[in-house]
Amino acid sequence: MIVEMKTGASQGEVDDVVQKARSQGLGVQLNKGTDKTVVALLGSNTGQLSTDIFAVLPGVESVTRIMKPYKLASREVKSQDTLVSCSGVEVGAERIVIMAGPCAVESKEQLMEVGAAVKKAGASVLRGGAFKPRTSPFSFQGLQKAGLELLAQAREQIGIPVVTEVVDPHDVELVSGYADILQIGSRNMQNYALLTNVGKSRSPVVLKRGFACTITEWLTAADYLLAEGNDQVILCERGIRTFEDSVRFSLDISAIPVLKRSSHLPVIVDPSHAAGYYSLVPAIAKAAVAAGADGLLIEVHPNPKEALVDGLQSLTPSDFTRLMEELRTIAKSVGRYI
Amino acid sequence: MIVEMKTGASQGEVDDVVQKARSQGLGVQLNKGTDKTVVALLGSNTGQLSTDIFAVLPGVESVTRIMKPYKLASREVKSQDTLVSCSGVEVGAERIVIMAGPCAVESKEQLMEVGAAVKKAGASVLRGGAFKPRTSPFSFQGLQKAGLELLAQAREQIGIPVVTEVVDPHDVELVSGYADILQIGSRNMQNYALLTNVGKSRSPVVLKRGFACTITEWLTAADYLLAEGNDQVILCERGIRTFEDSVRFSLDISAIPVLKRSSHLPVIVDPSHAAGYYSLVPAIAKAAVAAGADGLLIEVHPNPKEALVDGLQSLTPSDFTRLMEELRTIAKSVGRYI
Amino acid sequence: MIVEMKTGASQGEVDDVVQKARSQGLGVQLNKGTDKTVVALLGSNTGQLSTDIFAVLPGVESVTRIMKPYKLASREVKSQDTLVSCSGVEVGAERIVIMAGPCAVESKEQLMEVGAAVKKAGASVLRGGAFKPRTSPFSFQGLQKAGLELLAQAREQIGIPVVTEVVDPHDVELVSGYADILQIGSRNMQNYALLTNVGKSRSPVVLKRGFACTITEWLTAADYLLAEGNDQVILCERGIRTFEDSVRFSLDISAIPVLKRSSHLPVIVDPSHAAGYYSLVPAIAKAAVAAGADGLLIEVHPNPKEALVDGLQSLTPSDFTRLMEELRTIAKSVGRYI
Amino acid sequence: MIVEMKTGASQGEVDDVVQKARSQGLGVQLNKGTDKTVVALLGSNTGQLSTDIFAVLPGVESVTRIMKPYKLASREVKSQDTLVSCSGVEVGAERIVIMAGPCAVESKEQLMEVGAAVKKAGASVLRGGAFKPRTSPFSFQGLQKAGLELLAQAREQIGIPVVTEVVDPHDVELVSGYADILQIGSRNMQNYALLTNVGKSRSPVVLKRGFACTITEWLTAADYLLAEGNDQVILCERGIRTFEDSVRFSLDISAIPVLKRSSHLPVIVDPSHAAGYYSLVPAIAKAAVAAGADGLLIEVHPNPKEALVDGLQSLTPSDFTRLMEELRTIAKSVGRYI
Repeated sequence: MIVEMKTGASQGEVDDVVQKARSQGLGVQLNKGTDKTVVALLGSNTGQLSTDIFAVLPGVESVTRIMKPYKLASREVKSQDTLVSCSGVEVGAERIVIMAGPCAVESKEQLMEVGAAVKKAGASVLRGGAFKPRTSPFSFQGLQKAGLELLAQAREQIGIPVVTEVVDPHDVELVSGYADILQIGSRNMQNYALLTNVGKSRSPVVLKRGFACTITEWLTAADYLLAEGNDQVILCERGIRTFEDSVRFSLDISAIPVLKRSSHLPVIVDPSHAAGYYSLVPAIAKAAVAAGADGLLIEVHPNPKEALVDGLQSLTPSDFTRLMEELRTIAKSVGRYI
Repeated sequence: MIVEMKTGASQGEVDDVVQKARSQGLGVQLNKGTDKTVVALLGSNTGQLSTDIFAVLPGVESVTRIMKPYKLASREVKSQDTLVSCSGVEVGAERIVIMAGPCAVESKEQLMEVGAAVKKAGASVLRGGAFKPRTSPFSFQGLQKAGLELLAQAREQIGIPVVTEVVDPHDVELVSGYADILQIGSRNMQNYALLTNVGKSRSPVVLKRGFACTITEWLTAADYLLAEGNDQVILCERGIRTFEDSVRFSLDISAIPVLKRSSHLPVIVDPSHAAGYYSLVPAIAKAAVAAGADGLLIEVHPNPKEALVDGLQSLTPSDFTRLMEELRTIAKSVGRYI
Repeated sequence: MIVEMKTGASQGEVDDVVQKARSQGLGVQLNKGTDKTVVALLGSNTGQLSTDIFAVLPGVESVTRIMKPYKLASREVKSQDTLVSCSGVEVGAERIVIMAGPCAVESKEQLMEVGAAVKKAGASVLRGGAFKPRTSPFSFQGLQKAGLELLAQAREQIGIPVVTEVVDPHDVELVSGYADILQIGSRNMQNYALLTNVGKSRSPVVLKRGFACTITEWLTAADYLLAEGNDQVILCERGIRTFEDSVRFSLDISAIPVLKRSSHLPVIVDPSHAAGYYSLVPAIAKAAVAAGADGLLIEVHPNPKEALVDGLQSLTPSDFTRLMEELRTIAKSVGRYI
Repeated sequence: MIVEMKTGASQGEVDDVVQKARSQGLGVQLNKGTDKTVVALLGSNTGQLSTDIFAVLPGVESVTRIMKPYKLASREVKSQDTLVSCSGVEVGAERIVIMAGPCAVESKEQLMEVGAAVKKAGASVLRGGAFKPRTSPFSFQGLQKAGLELLAQAREQIGIPVVTEVVDPHDVELVSGYADILQIGSRNMQNYALLTNVGKSRSPVVLKRGFACTITEWLTAADYLLAEGNDQVILCERGIRTFEDSVRFSLDISAIPVLKRSSHLPVIVDPSHAAGYYSLVPAIAKAAVAAGADGLLIEVHPNPKEALVDGLQSLTPSDFTRLMEELRTIAKSVGRYI
C-alpha cells in the first residue's frame, strides 16, 4: 500500500501515518521526493486492509493499493489451475464443457425433450432454472420445488449432471439435494448471506459475474466461497452493463485472458444472457472458446416461440447442434476438444 | 407495444403476430408503411408483458415497449405524492428529513455519542448498520443482533426513530422488531427473496438504487414491495457505477427530477456512499436538496480516523453541524425546511 | 416513428401532432388505446427526422424511433457485403486481412525492420502512425510529414500497402498522397469536419469506433463518409469505455455479429488498443477471428521496451509470428484463410 | 510512480527497472517486502512520464502513477483560483455567470428576440451556435459564417458578450474575430489539432468535458490549452455517458467539488445537453449552483416547437425568467449572487 502525502504535509502528519501502519503490524519505508513524501507500507496482508484507515488521516493526499483485495482466488496463492469435478464432469481440463438447456424448467415434457437433444449434440451438463429471479413481480417466477424434482428426474433419465440456480440463502441445502452444481446468479454475486451458505456446502458452484462488478470484485466474491472451504468454484462471465444498447449486456471477452492470468479458477461463458438475442449467440460462443474459455452455458429451448422465459435468446435444438459442430473445430484449433 | 416487421415480411408472418397478440387479449392496429409493416398492440397491461414473445416470431425486426414495465410505483397509477410515515417523522412532505449516523454500529458509546450529536444538529432519524454486507470476507461484518439491540436502546434514550439495513430475507421480522425503518442496500435491490419478505412486512423501507440499475429497473423493484402490500417505500439514490474514478460512485442528480415526474414515491439521497470521501459530501448534499430531494442519508462518526467501516466518507459531528446550517438556507430557498 | 400521447391528452393536442407530421410529408395512423392514444408516423425518411420536433409538442409523453438514424451504411439500403479494395488487398472477402506494425513511426530502421517482419509473418498491410493524437501535450506527437515519407518508402521497399491516421481535416490530401488507407481514430469518430473531408477523398478508410459511441452512432458517422461519395469504408472495433479497469478498454466482441446483421461494411478489430497489454492481445485476436471479423489491426514493435508510444501493448515480431500461426487455424475453422 | 515487481522477480529484473529510472533522471527507493519488491520512482515530472516504459520490462507486475498526468491545470502548480475575463464579465468570481441563448443561430429575428429576453432576465453572456457538429450528415449544420455575423450584430445591439463553438482548427482565427468566448465541444475535447490552435489564440475558451472522459483526462486536455499560453480556460461539465437511459447524459454533479479541489480553473455547468429535456433543466441548474458551480450554460429558444436543433431541451424565455428567480435565491444561500 502506498500513501502519498500532500505537498507540504508536516512531519507530525507523516509520523501519524507511520505509527498507524506500525500498529497494524506493517513495515514502513519512507520516500522523500522533491515535492512530497510517499510512504510505502509493506506486509503480506495489505490487500485485505482498508485503504480508508490511512486516507482519513490529515495530510494524506491519496492511498493506492498494490496488493489485490482478493487472496484465495488468486494465482499468487495457488499457481496451478483448479479442476472442478461435477459428478464425473471435469471443468478446467482439456475438454471444454458445454452446459445447455432451457432458461426455466417449464414441464416434464419440455425438460426431457431438450435434455435429450442437448446431450445428443454433445452437451455434458443440463441447465434449467427452478427458482427464477425476475425483474418484474408480475412475471413467471419458476416452478420452484417442483422444478427441482423434474431436474432430478432428468438427471437420472438422461444421465447427465444438472446445474440450477439458488437464490435464497436458506435454500442451499434443499437445492444441493437435487442438483449437481449450484449456480449463483449475476444479481446475487454480492449477496453475502448466500455466498456464505453456498461456501459452507460442498457442491460445485458456478459464480456468475455481477453485471456491473469489476473482475477484482468478482474474485473477492469468490474468496467468500473459498474462505468457507468450498474450493469447487467455476467463474462465469455473462456480460456487463455498458452504454451499448444493441445487446442486453456487453460480453467482456478480455475477462477470459485477464482471469487466466490472475486466478487459478476455471472460467466459462454464458453467451445467451449477454446477447439477449439468439442470432448473436453463435458468434459470441465461438469467440469465447477461441479466447480460452473452459466451458459455455447456453440456453436451448425446444420451441422458443412458446418459452415462458427468455425465448428470444434461446437456440432451438437444431441450431444448437449446428453450433456444436462449429465449436468442435474451434476447440481443436486451440488445442482442446468438446 | 410496437412490433416492427422486417422489410419484405410475408403476410403469414404478419398474421402470426396478430394472432399471438389476440391470444394475449390485446387490441391490434396494422400500419402498412411504404417499406415495412408496423403493428401496434394495445391494452392496459402491455407494460408487464414480455416483448420476447413477439420478438421471437419470424419476420419480426424489433419490438418496442411503450408502456413502462413498472406499474404500482408510477405516477400514472397514483398521481398524488406518497407520504411515508416513520414513527412520527413524515418523508415526502414539506420538511426535508435528514437521516444521519455511523456506517456501522460499533459500540454503545459510539452510537450514543453520534446519535445525540446528530439529533442536536437537527437530524430526525438515526442511521446505523448492524448487518454489514462487505465486499471482502475478511472485513468487519457488523455487530449483528447486538447491534440491533444497541439501536433500540439509542432510539429510546435519544428519542428519534432508527433506520438499519436488512440483508437476509429471513431476518426481516427480527430487524423489524428493533428498527423503525428497514433499509434494502444497493447490492440487494434485485434480491427478490428479500424484496418479497420486506414487502410482506408493514415497516417503512428505504430502497437504495442498485449501483448499476436504471431508474426503470429501480421502480420495477419498488413494484415488488408495493405488490406485496407495503406502500411505505422511500427511494434512495446513492450513486451509480460509471467510468469516472475520482469518486466511488457518480451521484445521478437528474434521477431526482426524473423520479418526481414518473413516480409518486418520496426520494432521498445518500451523498456519503456516492462520494466515498468526506470533503465531497457537503457539495453533493446541497445539490440534492436544491434539486428537490425529500431527504438525505449522511454518515457521521465521532472519530472517523478510528471508524471500523467507511471512515473516509464520514463527517465529524462538527462538520455535520456546519453542513446542517448550510442545508437549512438551501431548503428555504426551494420553499422547504429542515 | 411512434408518438405516445399522455393519458388524458386532448383531441387538439393529438391534432397538432397529426398536422406536424403531415407538414413533414409523413403518413399518419391513429391508435386509440384504452388509456392513451398512440400515433404511428409513416414514411421512408423517418430515421433522419429529429424525434424532438414531436416530443416538444404539448400532450406528448414520448417519441420512439423505429427506423435507424443511419441509412447508407445499413444493410436495408444495400444487402450485399461491401468489399474494400486497398491497392490490391481486398477487405471483406474470404481472406482475413492482417494489418500490423508499430504504433508510431519512429525511424527508418524501426519501420523497415518491423515492416519486413510482419510481411514475412503474413500481414498484408503495414500500419504506422505519423500524426499521433496524444492525451498529454508533453508526450511524443509523431514524426508527422517525415513519418509519412518513411511510410511511402516502406511501402515501396517492402511491397505492401500502408495505413496511417489523419487527424487534421486539412491534411487529408497530404496524407492520401503517401498512404494507401486513411485511418480515422477513435477520438475523431465524431469530428465532422474530418469526416466530411475524408468522405470527399477516394482513399479507403478505416473508421475506428469512438470509445464511448454506440454502434448506431458509429454507423451514422459512417454515413458522413458515404454521403460524400466515399464507399470504401472499413469499420474498426477497438474497445469501449466501461467501468472495468483491468484493461484499457473493453473490446465489444458482440459488435461483430451486430454489425454483420445491420451493415454491409467490412469489420476489423484492433485488439492492441483495447487490451493495452501485450499478453492479452492473442486471446482477443483469436476471439475476433472466431466471431467473424474480416481483419485485425495489431501493434508490433521490434523492441517494445524502447518504443516511444504504446510499447506495453505491442507484440514482438516473434510473438506476432507465433500468433499468426494460431490465427491461421482459427480462420480455417470458420471457413476462411489468412 | 510505484513499480510493483512480480513475486519471485530476479535481482537482474529489479536492476533493469532501477537503471531505466535513473536514465530518465528519476530518484529510486527500493522497498523489499516479504513477498515482493516495490520500487518507488521519485521526481517532479513523473506525472508526464508514460507508465508503459516500466510496465513493459520483464518481472514487472504493475506500475501505479502517483502524480497526476496534468500539471498546468492543477492546484498544486497554482493554488489561487483563476478568474477568466470575458469582455468585462468575470468567470470564477463571486458572481455566478449565466450564459444563455439558442442552441443554433437560426435567423436575425430569433437571435435578437432571445438575446434581449435572456439579457433582461439576467444572463450576462449570449450563447448561439454557428457551426453545428451533428451526429447525422442529413441534419441542419448551422448558418456558419452568416451565423457568426449575426452573433456579432447581437453583441453590439444587445450589449453582452457572445460565446460560440469552433469545430475546425483552421477556423479559430475566423471565429475569434466575431466571438468573445470560444467554445470547444464535448466531441472535440481530445481533438488535439483544435486544442493547439485555440491554445495559441488569446480568446477565453469554454472547454466542455468529453462525454466519456475522466476528470483527469479533461484536465490533461486543458493542459494543451495552457501549454500553448492561453490561460483563460473555463471548464464546462455537460453530462457523461452512462447506462441510464431516462436522460441524454448523466450530469456528473460531483465533478464540481472534485474540480474545485484539484484545479484552479473556473467550472460551469450545461444542464440542457445533459438532461436533453426541458422540464429536467431547472432542477439540475439549481443543483449545480448549490454544489458550487461558477456559472451555467442554458439553452433558451423563443419557440422551442419550431427550433431547428435541440428544441426539446430548450427553455422558453418565460421559463428561463422564472428559473433565474429561483437561481438567485440559491446563489444567495451559498454566499454568491447572479
